Amino acid sequence: MSELRRDPITGRWAIIASERAARTSDFVTTSARKPDAFCPFCPGNEDATPHELAVVRAPSPAEDAPWVVRAFPNRFPALRVERELLRTAEGLFDRVAGVGAHEVIVETRVHEESLADLGISTLAEVLRVWRERLVDLARDHRLTYVSVFKNHGAAAGATLSHEHSQVLALPTIPRDVELEFERTAAYFERTERCASCDLIRQEVSDGARIVYESEGFLALCPWASPTPFLIWILPKRHVSHFETIDGDELANLAETLRTTLRKVERALETPAYNLSLASGRLREAGSPSHHWRLELAPVLTLPGGFERASGCYINPTPPEEAAAFLRGITKT
Amino acid sequence: MSELRRDPITGRWAIIASERAARTSDFVTTSARKPDAFCPFCPGNEDATPHELAVVRAPSPAEDAPWVVRAFPNRFPALRVERELLRTAEGLFDRVAGVGAHEVIVETRVHEESLADLGISTLAEVLRVWRERLVDLARDHRLTYVSVFKNHGAAAGATLSHEHSQVLALPTIPRDVELEFERTAAYFERTERCASCDLIRQEVSDGARIVYESEGFLALCPWASPTPFLIWILPKRHVSHFETIDGDELANLAETLRTTLRKVERALETPAYNLSLASGRLREAGSPSHHWRLELAPVLTLPGGFERASGCYINPTPPEEAAAFLRGITKT
Repeated sequence: MSELRRDPITGRWAIIASERAARTSDFVTTSARKPDAFCPFCPGNEDATPHELAVVRAPSPAEDAPWVVRAFPNRFPALRVERELLRTAEGLFDRVAGVGAHEVIVETRVHEESLADLGISTLAEVLRVWRERLVDLARDHRLTYVSVFKNHGAAAGATLSHEHSQVLALPTIPRDVELEFERTAAYFERTERCASCDLIRQEVSDGARIVYESEGFLALCPWASPTPFLIWILPKRHVSHFETIDGDELANLAETLRTTLRKVERALETPAYNLSLASGRLREAGSPSHHWRLELAPVLTLPGGFERASGCYINPTPPEEAAAFLRGITKT
Repeated sequence: MSELRRDPITGRWAIIASERAARTSDFVTTSARKPDAFCPFCPGNEDATPHELAVVRAPSPAEDAPWVVRAFPNRFPALRVERELLRTAEGLFDRVAGVGAHEVIVETRVHEESLADLGISTLAEVLRVWRERLVDLARDHRLTYVSVFKNHGAAAGATLSHEHSQVLALPTIPRDVELEFERTAAYFERTERCASCDLIRQEVSDGARIVYESEGFLALCPWASPTPFLIWILPKRHVSHFETIDGDELANLAETLRTTLRKVERALETPAYNLSLASGRLREAGSPSHHWRLELAPVLTLPGGFERASGCYINPTPPEEAAAFLRGITKT
């Protein structure tokens, strides 16, 4: 049974996911992993995945029109909802039973298609399913935070190549997320302003780190980017929770994300990447200090012992150079 | 010119290392990197590296006996000492000029030899050079923290295969290190005890996560291990700073590290790994709450979007299983 554990020295939580149990032999053969012979995410193989939590179908009067986007529980979940929430201690050690949810969102019917290949309306449907799952999971009062993320390519941690994102709902707020909440709340306390709103003003006025700007969104390479070509996509007006996004904004975000992804794919020759959503605490009726964003992190370098031990990264590419390069790519 | 930058939203520092500047083309060709044709760390090629900072020679009356261990500045340093320490702000952004030191310690003359292959006395000499560099760098009052680490194997971030460790001295304490100092100081405040000393007592009494125990040191898989087969090696008695280790303890630590490394190499078929030292703040005359340790992290899984965004890791191998497996390997 999976559980969340906190380290008494570092304060970090980890999910010890026994249900995804890996034996020693799994590690020594990783490099020789076979390509997916059978893809459980392809049309026709729907029986190989659990019951659907959400589905978007092609526009058609027929009820059984082909699906375009599908969400369902992860077959090998790190956490599960069908459990009692149990917080216990064992001497110095904190433990929370592995209550939570772990879901998969298949983003296209076509095995070979990547997120950047999708049309704007399909990409908007993917983001709409993200919103739908967040709203649904927020109803479970045991859960406090939802992470929506995507691993594209083996180097980014993907184990199946058919394009998909994942949703992980947690009964505890991860340390790095909590630290950011605390930091921006303290900034608001001091200034009565949102730090990200201030950041957006400063970045727009400076211009050096801007990658792309649309009507409602800004894509930029952050000042202290830990890794090369990291990009944040933020709504230009203050919004704390992604869940409140409306239809027009979804279309605008889809266009912004698509343009940014295509710039990155052209610049770096379709690299592996991670995409993740930083939204607010579940069931919070808006926050004046948190400002949601997407993070797009191409995987171009490997963390070493220094990064692992300190959380401080050595980035050989100044964000100003990365942003200038990406701005220069106009044919996407 | 390199600089340290702090993100105003997340609070994380990053080293923007323009002197190691990587262009876009460096990333797209990474996978096709050639094996080292010329090794600057091999005997005979000493001219290819900067002046020596420390050297250990084979026991011999001759002054030019062959070297066994060599330390010198990194040719492509993330930070440099020959600079003025300058802390500035640019609106929301904090910046520290890239003052610091970045050094390399070559651990063996033999290109093919790994750390686990070294005899105990040579390994003790390597650890003695770590100590010597820490003591020397502590004399520079601009520096506040030194990270000593090792990337073994390409998957762990190594770019040269000849066995070496690195020393990175910083003018600022990385966020994760500072957070641990604060956490253990608060624990001491509350209990008048060191959290690691309490941890050691609990782990020895439980036994489930112990990997190996020697006269003065304990190797264990931590309770909330973020990654499979992570190992901490701690001195059993309370010591805050590695720099204070004496000759007998160095030999005992070398034996403990060697045994642990050889267990890991046998269990996981010589995996890539990171090794890092967590010592105290520079020039602190001992701390009642910090307890130094080595961290040995085999690289068996890749972080994905969830880990990157939250700092929370999904670990498929419970530390109790990893420790039991490693305990069972007795022929090292």
